Amino acid sequence: MLVALLPGDGIGPEIITQARRVLDALAIEGLVYEEALVGGVAYKAVGHPLPPATLDLARRADAILFGAVGDPDCDALERHLRPEQAILGLRKELGLFANLRPAKMFAELADASTLRPEVASAIDLMIIRELNGDVYFGEKAMRTTADGQREGYDIMSYNEGEVRRIAHVAFRTAQARRGRLCSVDKANVLETSQLWRDVMIETAADYPDVVLSHMYVDNAAMQLVRNPGQFDVIVTGNLFGDILSDQASMCVGSIGLLASAALDGAGKGLYEPIHGSAPDIAGQGKANPLATVLSAAMMLRYSLGLPDQADRIEAAVARALAGGARGADLGGTMSTAQIGDAVVAAL
Amino acid sequence: MLVALLPGDGIGPEIITQARRVLDALAIEGLVYEEALVGGVAYKAVGHPLPPATLDLARRADAILFGAVGDPDCDALERHLRPEQAILGLRKELGLFANLRPAKMFAELADASTLRPEVASAIDLMIIRELNGDVYFGEKAMRTTADGQREGYDIMSYNEGEVRRIAHVAFRTAQARRGRLCSVDKANVLETSQLWRDVMIETAADYPDVVLSHMYVDNAAMQLVRNPGQFDVIVTGNLFGDILSDQASMCVGSIGLLASAALDGAGKGLYEPIHGSAPDIAGQGKANPLATVLSAAMMLRYSLGLPDQADRIEAAVARALAGGARGADLGGTMSTAQIGDAVVAAL
Ligand SMILES: CC(C)[C@H](C(=O)O)[C@@H](O)C(=O)O
Ligand SMILES: CC(C)[C@H](C(=O)O)[C@@H](O)C(=O)O
Repeated sequence: MLVALLPGDGIGPEIITQARRVLDALAIEGLVYEEALVGGVAYKAVGHPLPPATLDLARRADAILFGAVGDPDCDALERHLRPEQAILGLRKELGLFANLRPAKMFAELADASTLRPEVASAIDLMIIRELNGDVYFGEKAMRTTADGQREGYDIMSYNEGEVRRIAHVAFRTAQARRGRLCSVDKANVLETSQLWRDVMIETAADYPDVVLSHMYVDNAAMQLVRNPGQFDVIVTGNLFGDILSDQASMCVGSIGLLASAALDGAGKGLYEPIHGSAPDIAGQGKANPLATVLSAAMMLRYSLGLPDQADRIEAAVARALAGGARGADLGGTMSTAQIGDAVVAAL
Repeated sequence: MLVALLPGDGIGPEIITQARRVLDALAIEGLVYEEALVGGVAYKAVGHPLPPATLDLARRADAILFGAVGDPDCDALERHLRPEQAILGLRKELGLFANLRPAKMFAELADASTLRPEVASAIDLMIIRELNGDVYFGEKAMRTTADGQREGYDIMSYNEGEVRRIAHVAFRTAQARRGRLCSVDKANVLETSQLWRDVMIETAADYPDVVLSHMYVDNAAMQLVRNPGQFDVIVTGNLFGDILSDQASMCVGSIGLLASAALDGAGKGLYEPIHGSAPDIAGQGKANPLATVLSAAMMLRYSLGLPDQADRIEAAVARALAGGARGADLGGTMSTAQIGDAVVAAL
């Protein structure tokens, strides 16, 4: 099985190194790794954030372990050359439409959340974010209007097929968890959301064992602060999912702990920590590698058919945290490599 | 001076009644009130959520005090007949483009927030949300694509004039506060946001005493949980403002306390609590009227030129809260009218 390693920018290389160490410690037979350039480093080396060789490797691979992209040096580039286009391009080109973002409070970290401990400790939710549509990929441009003004526009849209395939992923995920699915939209204002809601309701007929509810996105942002423990699975579009999943992740204390998967319909996936490239701390050994280590665990579970090995990694991370493995993001003093050591030792 | 009272649906009439009592207790000379139907009640009575007579009153009035709209009975109506269209229609028809949503922790309520007290007590921010553009008012429809699928779409856009006028409101607000303005967008993905950011930067040249920063909306949702005390004034578009202002409001404990203003360029405004019509508790005397009372205070300050009277109301609300005036939303037992009594007594 071929794993593509795409470290990317900023802290990307450091955290991928630690995830690789943890994977190596499991000594899984038949896993091969190939590495390629992505993001700002790729632009600087070969003039494009997602070079053909990288896209080709991603296509050949059974799974992709991704670090982070984003580099302030590239902010002034034309949009299609910016580092972020690499991750958007991979999602779109490989049809990775289903983004799974679990957020669960580690008991050891109850003191890390800014939410009261009794509120934070109840968090155990999964956000399923659609990744291939919405206002992210519609026609967009800057133009000059008839009266000579600059205008920026972006078309938001979903068709029923796009909504239906993410709906099935969400309902099946809810079946495997606590059986509750909350669909988040803005159907009181958006036609895109009205279609989203209609298709969610239609799809629900196939899953009588799942309880479907609907919530407006403004209310959802409120409820994630008021009572995040009420949620089991949340399904939402690309833009709302971007906002709500980052919000939810902060509710559990640190985004340094949160893994994510972006899956196609056939089990292939891209796995990445949900935090970014953190250029301000890059190369200083301050990054928390646990989100990437946990992303590697998701990779074993969802793309490589190795759920037991995934469990082993997750248990080792919990043990390492219980043993005090904390970097600066969680008020500790351990370096990136020391946290990696702690996980390897706990395996 | 003419004040239009639009109680609307659900708890709207109860909370407007209390706000009116507080206004009456101030015995301000020359204030006249006229009431009209809006929302679901208007639809049921005359077939439209924003009847011509209501729009006409709103146009004639110097200020509008608004309760809430929203009625589950109307969920299945065509979009243009739903209660929410009344508030969207008023904002658009009257050119109320600047939404001011202050969020500040009342010292007496530190225990009401789900955020840790030391995090919540630092909140003192103002969200300025653009209200007349964005994906709310662009072309939108449900259509059938060439391959026979239903598709919903909505056009998101801003032109430079729209951004510039809200930018000026935001910079002036920051000047009158702590001099810091954070503009929230998603410029790494949206052209609408790129234009927004460009115009914010251009406008900053007129306000050398204000420090302008930029934040992506996903990060902003995270920072409002991690460290909301970092913000002074936030300016953002209609959609992101909808989400972030509701999130921020919950950070201070209860949306039962948060007032808002929607202003045109000439001092006219619509004032409303940011909570909704809460049909589940309507008519039971359980609603918290304080957000509406505080909205009336904003009305005195921003539209009626009576800042001292506004201060009096706000001080009375703080005293009532300190004296224990709390309804069910804040873990207390007082009814809507009893909370009104407490404010009137504290005046
Ligand atoms: C980098 C950016 C384009 C991306 C997104 O908005 O999807 C990121 O925020 C994410 O959530 O993965
Ligand atoms: C009722 C709805 C259309 C409205 C909005 O989205 O603007 C509400 O959520 C608000 O924030 O005032």
